[in-house]
This record gives sequence, C-alpha cells and structure tokens, in this order.
Amino acid sequence: MNVVILAAGMGKRMQSSLPKVLHPLAGKALLQHVIDTARSLQAHSICVIYGHGGDQVLSAVAAEDLKFARQEPQLGTGHAVAQAIPVLDDAVPTLVLYGDVPLTTTSSLQRLVDVAGRDKLAILTAVMDDPTGLGRIVRENGQIVRIVEQKDASEAERAIREINTGIMIVPTPQLREWLGQLSNNNAQGEYYLTDIVASAVAAGVPVVSAQPGAIWETLGVNSKVQLAELERIHQGNIARQLLEQGVTLMDPARIDVRGKLVCGRDVTIDVGCVFEGTVTLADGVSIGAHSVLRNAHIDAGAIIRPFCHIEDATVGAQAQIGPYARLRPGTILAEDVHIGNFVEVKNSQIAAHSKANHLAYIGDATVGSRVNIGAGTITCNYDGANKFRTVIEDDAFIGSDTQLVAPVRVGKGATLGAGTTLTKDAPEGKLTVSRARQITIDNWQRPVKLKKV
Amino acid sequence: MNVVILAAGMGKRMQSSLPKVLHPLAGKALLQHVIDTARSLQAHSICVIYGHGGDQVLSAVAAEDLKFARQEPQLGTGHAVAQAIPVLDDAVPTLVLYGDVPLTTTSSLQRLVDVAGRDKLAILTAVMDDPTGLGRIVRENGQIVRIVEQKDASEAERAIREINTGIMIVPTPQLREWLGQLSNNNAQGEYYLTDIVASAVAAGVPVVSAQPGAIWETLGVNSKVQLAELERIHQGNIARQLLEQGVTLMDPARIDVRGKLVCGRDVTIDVGCVFEGTVTLADGVSIGAHSVLRNAHIDAGAIIRPFCHIEDATVGAQAQIGPYARLRPGTILAEDVHIGNFVEVKNSQIAAHSKANHLAYIGDATVGSRVNIGAGTITCNYDGANKFRTVIEDDAFIGSDTQLVAPVRVGKGATLGAGTTLTKDAPEGKLTVSRARQITIDNWQRPVKLKKV
Amino acid sequence: MNVVILAAGMGKRMQSSLPKVLHPLAGKALLQHVIDTARSLQAHSICVIYGHGGDQVLSAVAAEDLKFARQEPQLGTGHAVAQAIPVLDDAVPTLVLYGDVPLTTTSSLQRLVDVAGRDKLAILTAVMDDPTGLGRIVRENGQIVRIVEQKDASEAERAIREINTGIMIVPTPQLREWLGQLSNNNAQGEYYLTDIVASAVAAGVPVVSAQPGAIWETLGVNSKVQLAELERIHQGNIARQLLEQGVTLMDPARIDVRGKLVCGRDVTIDVGCVFEGTVTLADGVSIGAHSVLRNAHIDAGAIIRPFCHIEDATVGAQAQIGPYARLRPGTILAEDVHIGNFVEVKNSQIAAHSKANHLAYIGDATVGSRVNIGAGTITCNYDGANKFRTVIEDDAFIGSDTQLVAPVRVGKGATLGAGTTLTKDAPEGKLTVSRARQITIDNWQRPVKLKKV
Repeated sequence: MNVVILAAGMGKRMQSSLPKVLHPLAGKALLQHVIDTARSLQAHSICVIYGHGGDQVLSAVAAEDLKFARQEPQLGTGHAVAQAIPVLDDAVPTLVLYGDVPLTTTSSLQRLVDVAGRDKLAILTAVMDDPTGLGRIVRENGQIVRIVEQKDASEAERAIREINTGIMIVPTPQLREWLGQLSNNNAQGEYYLTDIVASAVAAGVPVVSAQPGAIWETLGVNSKVQLAELERIHQGNIARQLLEQGVTLMDPARIDVRGKLVCGRDVTIDVGCVFEGTVTLADGVSIGAHSVLRNAHIDAGAIIRPFCHIEDATVGAQAQIGPYARLRPGTILAEDVHIGNFVEVKNSQIAAHSKANHLAYIGDATVGSRVNIGAGTITCNYDGANKFRTVIEDDAFIGSDTQLVAPVRVGKGATLGAGTTLTKDAPEGKLTVSRARQITIDNWQRPVKLKKV
Repeated sequence: MNVVILAAGMGKRMQSSLPKVLHPLAGKALLQHVIDTARSLQAHSICVIYGHGGDQVLSAVAAEDLKFARQEPQLGTGHAVAQAIPVLDDAVPTLVLYGDVPLTTTSSLQRLVDVAGRDKLAILTAVMDDPTGLGRIVRENGQIVRIVEQKDASEAERAIREINTGIMIVPTPQLREWLGQLSNNNAQGEYYLTDIVASAVAAGVPVVSAQPGAIWETLGVNSKVQLAELERIHQGNIARQLLEQGVTLMDPARIDVRGKLVCGRDVTIDVGCVFEGTVTLADGVSIGAHSVLRNAHIDAGAIIRPFCHIEDATVGAQAQIGPYARLRPGTILAEDVHIGNFVEVKNSQIAAHSKANHLAYIGDATVGSRVNIGAGTITCNYDGANKFRTVIEDDAFIGSDTQLVAPVRVGKGATLGAGTTLTKDAPEGKLTVSRARQITIDNWQRPVKLKKV
Repeated sequence: MNVVILAAGMGKRMQSSLPKVLHPLAGKALLQHVIDTARSLQAHSICVIYGHGGDQVLSAVAAEDLKFARQEPQLGTGHAVAQAIPVLDDAVPTLVLYGDVPLTTTSSLQRLVDVAGRDKLAILTAVMDDPTGLGRIVRENGQIVRIVEQKDASEAERAIREINTGIMIVPTPQLREWLGQLSNNNAQGEYYLTDIVASAVAAGVPVVSAQPGAIWETLGVNSKVQLAELERIHQGNIARQLLEQGVTLMDPARIDVRGKLVCGRDVTIDVGCVFEGTVTLADGVSIGAHSVLRNAHIDAGAIIRPFCHIEDATVGAQAQIGPYARLRPGTILAEDVHIGNFVEVKNSQIAAHSKANHLAYIGDATVGSRVNIGAGTITCNYDGANKFRTVIEDDAFIGSDTQLVAPVRVGKGATLGAGTTLTKDAPEGKLTVSRARQITIDNWQRPVKLKKV
C-alpha cells in the first residue's frame, strides 16, 4: 500500500517553537512513531506531508525510504492528502495516517487493510462513551452511508457513538478522482478528506470499517495535556508488557521507558527508574530505586543500587554499582566490579574484581583486575588543553586521596600511599608515595571568632 | 465585604501538636490558603477566629490587614462567628469561610458574593453523588426554605443531593441580630451558624445559592487522610495548569509544587521533581528526574540533570548542572557554567563558562570566567571559627584535589598543580604547586591479612 | 485449629526460576505472609504443602512451629490437602489457606473460624462485580448446596455473583473421610478440594460462609501483573494506616514500605521514599524526598534531607542528614550530628554535635563530640589486607582533604591542617600538618592543544 502521513499542522495549542509532530512521546517524536508503524505494515511507499516547521520536520525524520510533500498553504486534510497524489502508486491502495496520532497499533491497521482489500474504502471507527465533537458514522442497514460532523448532526445522529477516527484506506485511483472533486464550500473554507466517503457511497464503492484494539490508539495530540495523557497510556502499556514478560516492577505506574528496554529472566526494577535509548538488563539484574539508565548493557546478576546514573556504559556480570554511582559514556566494567557511592567513571575500562567504592573520579583510565582504588582517588586526565590516559595494572592498590596525573602508569601489584600525587609511573610491586613529613606545631593557637567590624 | 474565617478547631483527628489550620497544603498552611483567597476578593476586613493553639496560629499568619478574635470556649460555628461581631462593618455583608477548607476558588466565592448582593443570604451549595452525613438543602418551589441535618432528615430529605458547604454570605446587621437569637438546644449543645438560615426565611430575607466550580473546593481537612487527598487534588490542578501553559510534564502525577512555579516556553520537567518557594524556569529549561528546587531562578536553555538539589540559587543561561549537583543558598552561576556530579556550591558567584565538573566543594568563593576547577577541589572556607572567601580570577586552572585555604586569591590565568594546598595567593599566569617528591620504596612488603586473636 | 497452606504450585506464568510462593510482596515472600497470618490465628499446627522448588521453599520459610509435607506429583488441591492428613489433629477443625493468596486478614479468617464452630464446613465467599471464571456459590433457600465451576454452570448459575475463594475450614475427621472419597474423573484429571462441599451437603453437615472485608484479601498471584497489582493494593493499605496514625505523607501513592515502619507523632514523609526492614521514626522526624531507609532508627526531631540512603544505622535526635548522605551499617550518630552531602559513614560512632558536612568517607571510626570534619576527609581504614580504626577525640578540627591512615588517633581539641596525610597520632590541642612548601614556577608554560597525529 501507499501510506500518506499528515504532519503539516502547526499545533498552536502546544505553545511551543517545536512543530507539533516533533514533540517526543516516550523519547521519540510523535511523527516518528507513526512512520515506524507505517514501516511495520510493509508499506510500498510512505509520504509525509509537512508544512509548519518544515525544515525541522525534514531534518528530524528524513530517511531513504520516505517521500516528502510540502503543503502550503494548509487548506484541510483533503488538500493535504492531495499533495501526495504525484507519488502514489495506483496499483495499491492508500492508507492515510496522522503524524499526531502516535499510538495506533500495527495489528489494528492491518485489520483495516485486510477488510479494505483492493477495492473498498475502509474507515477505522471507534465506539466512544462520549462522542461529543467527533464525526459520527451514519449507517443504514448496517452499511456506512455517510459521516456527519457534530455541528451538522441531527439529534438522532448525535446519539450515535461510533465515530470516525480519520484513519482510512482508499483505492488509489478513486482517491485521486475524489480528491479532485472536493469542495471547500464550508464554514472553515477547507477541503475535508472525510468528504470522499460521500463520493465513495455515491460511486457505489463499498465503505467498510474496522475497529482499533483500544480507544487510545486513535487519540491525537493537540496540547501538552493530551501529550501527557498519551505518554502515561503508552508507559502503562510498556509496563504491562514488561510484567507479562516476567519482569518484576515494584510499581508499574512509576517506570519510564523512552526507547527499548530488553530484560532477561528474574529482573527486578524498583520505583522511579527511567530508561532511555536502548537498555538491556540480563538475567537476574536488579535496578535500585530512582536510577536513570541510558544506552546501557547490564550483565547477568549485576546489582544497581538506588540513585545510579548510567549512560553509554556496560556493566559486567555480578557487578555491584551504587548507590549514587555515575557511569558516563565509554565506561566498560567487567565481571564483579564494584563501583560505590559518589564515584564517577568515564571512558574507562575496568577489569574483573576491581573496586572503587567511595568518592572517586576515574576518567580516561584502563584499570586491570583485582585493583583496589581508594576513596577520593582522582585521575587527572586533563591538563587544561589535552586529555591523557591513566593505566593501572592488575592487583594495584591505590591509596586514598591519590591523584594520578596522566599520562601515567601504575605497575602490576604496585601500591600508592594515601595522598600521593603521582606524576611519574609507579613501578610494579613496590610502594610509591609523595608525602611531606608530618609535623606538630606546639604553640599553635586555634583561631578565634573575629568580631564583625 | 467582611470576611470571617473560622480557625479555632482543635483538629484532634490530625493527631498532631500543630493546630489543624496550620498544617501545610502545598507548603502553605491551610489557613493561609483561605486568608489569601479572602484577600483576592478585596475584602473590606478579614477576621480570623482562633482558639486551639492560639499563639501558634497568631504568629504563623499575623499580618497588618488581619483582625483576630479568640473563641474560648468553643461552642459551635454560630458562637465562633459571633466573636467577630465587634469588628464587622454593618455597611457591607459578611462572608463566612473556614480555615480548614483551603481550596475554594476566588471565582466560586465571587459568584456567591454576586448572587447575594447587599440584601440576600447566599449559601454555597454543592450537589454530591453521596451526600450522606451532610446538611441537605431543602427547597420548595425552587426556593431554599431550610437546611436539614442528616440525623434530622426524613427519608425524602435524605434523598436530596444538594448539600450545604457551610460557606455563606449574610447581610451584616441581620447576621448580628440572628446570631443573637441562636439557641444551643441540641444534642451537641452548640450554637450552629446554619440555624440563621431559618431566621432568614422567617424574616423574609431571600436565601439564594451559588455552586462551586468543583466539589473539591468545598472539602475540609479533618485528618491526615483528607489532607493527603486535598494535597493530591491541588497538585493535580497545578500540574494541569502547567500543561495548559505549555509546559511538558513527563508525568503530571509526579510533580510537586509547594509555592509558585513560573515557566517560560518549551520547559520540560521530568518525573519526581519537587519545587518549593518561588522557582522560575526560563524558556527552554529542562529539569531532570527527581530534582528538588527551592527558591531558584534557572535561566534560558539551562539543563538541570537528574538528582539536583538547588536552593536559593540562580543558574545562568545555557548552564549545565548535575547530575547530583547541590547548589546551596547564595549560589549565582553565570551563563554556560557547568557544575557536575557530587559538586556542592555555596554562597559563591561563578562567572561565565567556568566549570566544576566533579566532586568538589566551592564555598564562599568568587570565581571568574573560563575557570576550570578540577575534581576534588575544596575551598577551605572555615578555620573552625571564621569563614573566609576564596577568589579565583578569570582563566585560572585549578588542578585536581587542590585545597584553597581561604582567604586566598588565585590570579588571572594561574595554574595550580594537582594536590596543592594553597595557603598564599597564587600569582597570575604562573604554575603554583605544593608537592612532595614522589619516591618509591624498594623493599616494601604489602600488608598481609592479620590473624584474628 | 489445624492450618494447611497449599504452596506446591509451579507458577509457570511468573516466568521465574524462583518458586511462585517465594516471590516477595512488600519485601516478604507470599508464603511468609500466609504463614504469619496463620500464626496470628493461634493455629494449633501449621502444615505447608510444598512441591516445586521444594528445597528453596523449605529453606526460605522453615521454622520450628511449621510442619511440611511434599506433594509430588501434583494432582489438584484435594490431593494437596490430603498430604497433610497424617499431621492433622482430629480434635480441631482444619483451615485451608493458599501460599499465593497473601493478603487475607486475620479478622476475616477469624470470622470464618467463628461461623464454622466445631462441626460446620465454612467457606470464605466473596461477591464479585464480574465473577467470570470463578466457582459460583449455589444456594437454595439461603443454604449453600453446591459450588459450580464456570464451565459447568447453567446460565442462571453464571449470573450468581457470590464466588468461592477456595479458603475453607472443615471438621477434620470429615475432611479426612471426604478427601478419601474424591474422584479425579474430570477434564483436568485432578482431585478438587471444592468437591468436599458436595460431600458435606450429602452428609448433612451444615455448609456456612463468611465474607472477607475486601475483595483484595482473596486475590491470588499467578503472574507478575497480579503480583504488581497486589503490591500496590498492599502499599495503599499501609499508606492509609500511616495516615490514620497521623503521619503526613506528601503522596500516599508514592511511599513503599517493605517491612515495618513505626512512626511517632508529627512525622512527615516526602514523595518517593522506600522503607525496608524495620524502620522507626520518632516524633517530629521528617524524611526528604526520594530517600531509602533500611533497618534504621531515626530519633526525635531529626531531619533527613532528600536522596539519603540509610541502612542498619541509628540517627540521633535533632540530627541533620543529607541531602545525598549515605549511612552504612554500623553507623551510630548521636544528638545533633550533621552529615552533609556526598558523605559516607560506615561502622562508625559519631558523638553529639559533630559535623561532616561535605564529601567525606568516615569508615571504622570513633568520633567524639563537637568534632568538625572538613570537606574531603577520608579515613584510610583498609591497607589492602586489614581494616583498622580511626579515633577522633572531642573538639578536634579535621582540615579539608585530610587522610587519616588508620590505626590513628587525633587527640582532644587537636587541629589537622588541610591536606594532611596523618600516619601517626596527632597530639591533643595542637596543630598537626604534613605539607609541602608552596612554590611558584615562574617560567612555566601552559599546555597547548596537541595536534592529532
């Protein structure tokens, strides 16, 4: 099929300088959700109709498999679809989607496609408890005969609860013809796509329908209120999927997944966690409360304690991280590594069984196995102009409050005394220190509180 | 109008040593909410009737425009209002509010005031799905003829769903007269304000009504359960207002605003954030998950990452703060300042483009532009008796793990070596260090595990 | 009475290697909840029927007062109860509970026990809005005559909304007899406990019923979705109890109590807090947002600021902790101790009025009163093989960025200069430092950005 995605609307009620369809839902632009759904339908071609914020839209979603058509001025949904006419293939029907209706599922759309076949016009309709304001589906003897807008509806028609979602699939030659016949002789002076339903009925083309699996699949975003509502619905769906896959969530209402979260067996996620990008949690991983993970792989059995912030990092099996550990991009931790509270690791590899348990900054470092990095250790990786690497070999013991002025190497099994400023390599197996003599001042007087002048 | 606010109740069910009306809702005492609403009505005078915890109440809300009257003993709502009689101006009507009903809106009360005019008694009534326990509004031919309490109501009267909220406005001379006629001949032995409705009907004074915009406007607080319910309703209202103003909230159910939150365009607030006092977020600001801000100004385009704690501080445009940054009172950060993880700033000014990205304490400091403060840097601002300032001039580079023993000055473009203890000023443009020679002990033996005795 | 707890099910839908009944709800295994409830009924004997994951179940819940019987293979609920026959005392009736139905209350079960007396079969039944799928209670003239399963029910029977929860109490001699008569002539080929109801009716034994206080008391856990639902119900109940006791919860939907939380008067708990094990909060304690406490005692008036992580620790009266403070096991803080941001305390006692306000690690230390521990202070308690203690006596002043290489003692009133590496005891009342001379390099050139090769 051809897919046409209407994405030209301004979205004034969003009160934003970002075009409406680019606002993120679960970390991904509304329009991108719709494009990805269209792709999942194995569409023959996908054409995005853009308008407001055109360049922003193009640069945000451009891809080789997408066509774009500009709608300017914007004279209604029928006019919007008409912009795609030059790129539509008559041999397959055309599905119309909306860039601000992000959550329609592939399976609902596939049902619509199936019911339409090659020669019918099919409308996705939904039954609403309160249809006020929406176009009603008028049927006679069960057959759809027209769509009537709220303002034009008789009292009997207003009682109809089946509504038009706007999503439809149309045989393409007829779509081409009917769009050409649309009139803007209405209050708004716009060309309405809905009007082609009357054309189909008049032409004797069967008008059929399918229903979405849930009402939220058809909800559009026109305001931040609606965006927040859809975000919570979507997050609720994701949480439910995770639970059904066997993940333990301490509170399904307090997890946010903005991207892809892949979990093994016996994974537990505590309250308040946020996952962004692609995060994989292997078997037996537990994530402590209020942690934030972005583009991370956590290997089997690792424990992430509360308040961790992990980004573009890999954590090895059985590792123990946090609380309050920050793993920044380029961090690769091997098996059984321990990173404790108030420790920052950046662009560093740390081999198995090594530990940095307290207040430390490990940046641009290569750390061996079974290394113990004392509290307060800092890799001085930046001289104000360039960054250099620190190498700490296996079994080294780095005393507390040590500064490793890179480039520098600590040899295998070396020990650094507490408080050392290491500016030259420390030979393996030996104790290296830089330390002033401890002295006591006998007649020293404690400072006293100064009088304010 | 005169406003009388009843605030003498003990609130035993609150199980607290704090008088009920002083319990905070959204960070402000229940009574203060009511006082602020009364002020918004341009009341002629506002009189608070206090009793239990009197001194606490007085000292918590005292203001020049408020009058106070003590009710002791407490003999009912009618008796309470009677305490205000001496200070009421007969020329204007009197509105009765309740110190434990915090969320009545100005617009609902204004409607009540408008319908009352100068010569009618007007009651704020509400229609409840379940009115059990509440006083019913009995009407004949649409006119209010009396209020009947639950226990005195006939079966037909119990079916009435319109109830008395207790909020009413009364012509003051008549109020004075009718209060004098109240009887305590009832089960509780109390004087009920409600009984003046019968007096009005008897006197031929028209009794009219207005309705609040929502039921929660009329809900009172008698227990922590009710306090929590109103807190969530209020927070939900605030969240909705923010969304309607165009703020992006990742979860409207997980934001707490206890004071005033003013947002520019394209502001995004992630889950779990708490705002206290007055916080302003300029255009394009984003606030990371689980951050706490109190009395703060965040300028345009600044990014606050997760887990930040900001209090009485100003953050400049395009600044990058956190995660895990703590900005304490007196922090003023200029444009493009970066404050990173596990960094505390207190009573310090930091000029544009300066950075303190890792584990540092910057207290009582004046920092210039383009300064780089290394990991582990500490301003030693306190000698045990007095606090002193540290001055770091433009373009200085402070090596890691440096202690700046205040009062001390680092000159323009100076560099401090890692691990330096700076006790005297560092001249501009030069490298200053205090460092012991690095030595290696050749025959050193690693400690071995001691046997437990 | 005898209590038989059925806990042999596999729980395949949990998709876990942990037996279903061992999954935690509020931090305690489902089965343990049921065992604890059985104990609260003063049961004569409690017999747990286990099967899948047998050893894990035994080792998780074994206790002196429990009997265990293995069911293998698992041929239905009747077969399961039959395994307990050898240990049942005929003199008292037998109550059947389920290891995956964790929230039945003692009071509901007591009502069931009371209605059963010694000679009746009593079923816990519940009235459901949607009973689909559940066994219906068929009554004639108000008397229970049989239980009919969904698939066998007539249309009239399907309309019955009173359902069988499975929980029942049966006179033990009859239970023994009726279990022996059970047939597995049904679709599943299983022996159903429910079938004994027909035996009772046939034998003329009265069949009576009681109802639980709430539907959630009868809900079982078969999937992570159901586990999460019960977790939230249980947490909601706990929150409500805390509110009713007078605790102020900023959001009852955002507190997790996994164990026992005991609160004094005027306790306030902000959003996002997690309590595990046994935590006591004395009068006037306030807990800041997003804090995690496990097995802790917080004394009267102490303030815990946001983002604290406290485990196996005691905090003294009026203490001020956090934000971002981590108190690890063995921490005992006396009155008015201040522990500030990015400070970790482990296995240390700190006496009254002492402060460690910024970035520090205090491990294996004994700290006196009125001690000031400067920013960046680290106790070097571990030499790579052994741990040693640090002693800091009253009124000492520890300068910033000091390392205390244990074992070491700082005398009463001693002062340590900033940056000191203390390897020998510091005498009382004097200033002790280890500090290299501050020098400035005159002709030093700043590093310049290297060209990438």
